[in-house]
Amino acid sequence: MRDEPPARATYHHGDLRAALVEAGLKLIEERAADDISLREVARAVGVSATAVYRHFPDKAALLAALAGEGLARLGEAQAAAAEAAGGGAAGFNATGVAYVRFALAHPGLFRLIFSHSRRPGSAGWDERSQEAMRMLQANAARLVGDRGEAAARLFALRAWALVHGLAVLILDGQVEADMAMVEAAVGEHVALGAG
Amino acid sequence: MRDEPPARATYHHGDLRAALVEAGLKLIEERAADDISLREVARAVGVSATAVYRHFPDKAALLAALAGEGLARLGEAQAAAAEAAGGGAAGFNATGVAYVRFALAHPGLFRLIFSHSRRPGSAGWDERSQEAMRMLQANAARLVGDRGEAAARLFALRAWALVHGLAVLILDGQVEADMAMVEAAVGEHVALGAG
Repeated sequence: MRDEPPARATYHHGDLRAALVEAGLKLIEERAADDISLREVARAVGVSATAVYRHFPDKAALLAALAGEGLARLGEAQAAAAEAAGGGAAGFNATGVAYVRFALAHPGLFRLIFSHSRRPGSAGWDERSQEAMRMLQANAARLVGDRGEAAARLFALRAWALVHGLAVLILDGQVEADMAMVEAAVGEHVALGAG
Repeated sequence: MRDEPPARATYHHGDLRAALVEAGLKLIEERAADDISLREVARAVGVSATAVYRHFPDKAALLAALAGEGLARLGEAQAAAAEAAGGGAAGFNATGVAYVRFALAHPGLFRLIFSHSRRPGSAGWDERSQEAMRMLQANAARLVGDRGEAAARLFALRAWALVHGLAVLILDGQVEADMAMVEAAVGEHVALGAG
């Protein structure tokens, strides 16, 4: 295997970054994040390793970009699900089910997203993560109504922990991947907690 | 470093197994399960690698024993917490808090326990795992009363997912290790779900 394959294509600066992220996202579904190399991503896109280093000086930088992109896609999937369900309690419910669905559809990316705060170089990820938390808190505040901020924080934490636990237990083979059961568990949570 | 250190001690058959498990449990808190070797466990106990192989033919067998022992200890911690809380809803609540406390006190072991079904050689673990599930279901059935078996199954799943999610999110640095918050989240879950 050659170290530096000849460039197969030319890219505008931003396009190459996007192509590298896309290639990284594909690789991460095939193996653990730690087993991905920048060289491999370069090869997948058909550019030299040197071209990759211009965007991602090291693997940590690439993984940070993948985690950030993953978080953005998870947020989009949740927003789409909420809108499809018509918002309100049903919409919040749908964001929880969408969270579990996303985890099952993209296990490698899901694990990367949530192991990311333990990795160096998480700038950008932090912002997206904080934005996701703000969205969750705002939704929770609407649902708990006049029960106040502490109740909203607790409801948000319980909602997140429930869907995260479901996702991880299913991914780790502890719980059956039964989406009807997931929907019932999330639905009951919202119905009881938002009341 | 020698491959086969001279035996430092003699053990009765059962005692050596227990000593090896104990040494493995200690090592697993210091590094990832995959980085532990049988040789290292032998060295920690002061016996030859050959003596270890009599009990654990390979690393998978050792990890299975560690996961089984971990599950047993988690169950004991939960049972003790339930008893201290006087049983009932408060007792169930306490088992959830004990689950999170155990995870935070023994992160390596906790991760091993719940990644274990993905590993080969999980006999023994399966039995203990099934027993833990039976306990959870029985407790859930008592709490939901005459709402029936499906309600109990759902309540049990939600309770497990909630505490598992809290534990994993805290271990992964996503959520602050605030035990008052954990107690509030678990307490509210039980209060709402058992009603």
